[in-house]
Amino acid sequence: MTVELEPERIVRLEEDGPAVVLLDQRRLPHEVAEVRCASAAEVAEAIRTMVVRGAPAIGIAAAYGLALAARRGEDLAEAERVLAASRPTAVNLPWALAEMRGDPTPERARALHEQEVDRCRRMAAHAAGLFAPGTRALTHCNAGGLATGGYGSAVGALRAAWERGLLERVLVDETRPLLQGARLTAWELEQLAIPHAVVADSAAGSLMARGEVDLVVTGADRIAANGDTANKIGTYSLAVLAAHHRIPLYVVAPSSSVDLSTPDGTGIPIEERDPAEVSDRFPARNPAFDVTPAGLIAAIVTERGVHRPPYEESLR
Amino acid sequence: MTVELEPERIVRLEEDGPAVVLLDQRRLPHEVAEVRCASAAEVAEAIRTMVVRGAPAIGIAAAYGLALAARRGEDLAEAERVLAASRPTAVNLPWALAEMRGDPTPERARALHEQEVDRCRRMAAHAAGLFAPGTRALTHCNAGGLATGGYGSAVGALRAAWERGLLERVLVDETRPLLQGARLTAWELEQLAIPHAVVADSAAGSLMARGEVDLVVTGADRIAANGDTANKIGTYSLAVLAAHHRIPLYVVAPSSSVDLSTPDGTGIPIEERDPAEVSDRFPARNPAFDVTPAGLIAAIVTERGVHRPPYEESLR
Repeated sequence: MTVELEPERIVRLEEDGPAVVLLDQRRLPHEVAEVRCASAAEVAEAIRTMVVRGAPAIGIAAAYGLALAARRGEDLAEAERVLAASRPTAVNLPWALAEMRGDPTPERARALHEQEVDRCRRMAAHAAGLFAPGTRALTHCNAGGLATGGYGSAVGALRAAWERGLLERVLVDETRPLLQGARLTAWELEQLAIPHAVVADSAAGSLMARGEVDLVVTGADRIAANGDTANKIGTYSLAVLAAHHRIPLYVVAPSSSVDLSTPDGTGIPIEERDPAEVSDRFPARNPAFDVTPAGLIAAIVTERGVHRPPYEESLR
Repeated sequence: MTVELEPERIVRLEEDGPAVVLLDQRRLPHEVAEVRCASAAEVAEAIRTMVVRGAPAIGIAAAYGLALAARRGEDLAEAERVLAASRPTAVNLPWALAEMRGDPTPERARALHEQEVDRCRRMAAHAAGLFAPGTRALTHCNAGGLATGGYGSAVGALRAAWERGLLERVLVDETRPLLQGARLTAWELEQLAIPHAVVADSAAGSLMARGEVDLVVTGADRIAANGDTANKIGTYSLAVLAAHHRIPLYVVAPSSSVDLSTPDGTGIPIEERDPAEVSDRFPARNPAFDVTPAGLIAAIVTERGVHRPPYEESLR
């Protein structure tokens, strides 16, 4: 593990200043740079513009943002409101803010951060049990250390499987429009020395048909009580294609991404981002997430173990 | 129809020079520029590097290239060999070269070009019959005038449906890695004043699930005798997704794309292009085409009419 992937390099609170300091995920892999946020509003803006992204990581960033607001003497209700409104889909954002209520301290934020990374290690160990020797996996977007504040969820599962000698190689969906797969997941896998190849998102189905994919593994932005899962746009297509080819799709995410108060996927707000991210020249549509029905998910892995259908029961 | 989409603007032979002149499709929509090819080898290089692309268009370009070689006194067997080897998947390339054998003249090449555009107009009229009022279509890559030397195959069908008042709007897959949808199809639809929106390739499935797609229409690079169809990478994924959502996928292509000598899709050579088109930083895979099994295609439309399964019979 290189220095760039240490949890405190991805997101940290500096009490001198004070500031929340974020590794700028928009500029990777070409440049390793940091963004300093001097107020809760600046943290919210960094979340909105995807300096930091990934459901657990934006939750952690928001927690540090609230601790920063408290240290600076900002109006905490207003700080929480601004942070909560920065992005709508991931449930980790309101979850982390709720966890901070009553104790908006640097210590509490750091504890949340450590817990999330610890959850990743535990869920990865559970998920590795789903890999057979020689597994050729496909993943979408970035559910790595960058997305979780350290270690990774889906990429964590790949790491654990690789360390156990069960993983042959990883196909990485480039993940348009912002290329989190081609920029971030490939960068993490390179540092982990796990064999990989980037593919256009539209090539995944054809590679499944050729027999080159044994399983699909992704993270999640919000998992409803029935197992319906919101994740980066394209996850649903992968799930339909995987089912067509009788390939399992596994969702790996911490319990902080499970939202038992939302009964099913119809209740998950889907962010529509700026069409200019897709085309700066012609009209465009840019839904950032989609919802994969529980019936297309072979298992959901959290730090508590491998959950199988029916998820209404196994997730509780 | 604007001047840029006139057949002679897309590809033509100038007998003074002489040269084959191609609209540079790599630079659209940002720049409307031409490339002059002074030999058959230069035409082959322009095909290989996708100055001109689209199965019928590269067949036409090769026909002009052979006429150019004849006019310049090149070794015709060598010119034909070089042109045929420029790209492997589209059957229009060897088809057009075979049509030129024995009469490698500018007149013959121009007649082939005119015939292809005429085929497009006829197939579009047949295909428009598949549209109900208010149809919301989705298309992939560019099967427009740029791809066929004029008018277009799948985009021709959209044009004809639009002129009949049957088309509400078009979702355009951006079509990674070279963005023929986002750059070329959107540009053509803009000029035709047909409402459209570009989407990431991975968003198509989710938009189908939301009920925003009534039919999918694509072109083809090679159609085997049983109806298996090679087309731009991602077409197969769309076909699986369309079937999952009970949405018809129609292939619109001239009879010059039908290869009755290839029994099924396993015999179609699939071009693997430079991985650097996908990622210039990490290892990548770049299959340029995939094969959609006939069973996932609701109809194949050629200038002769609407062909339905079983295609072994209807395509003959």
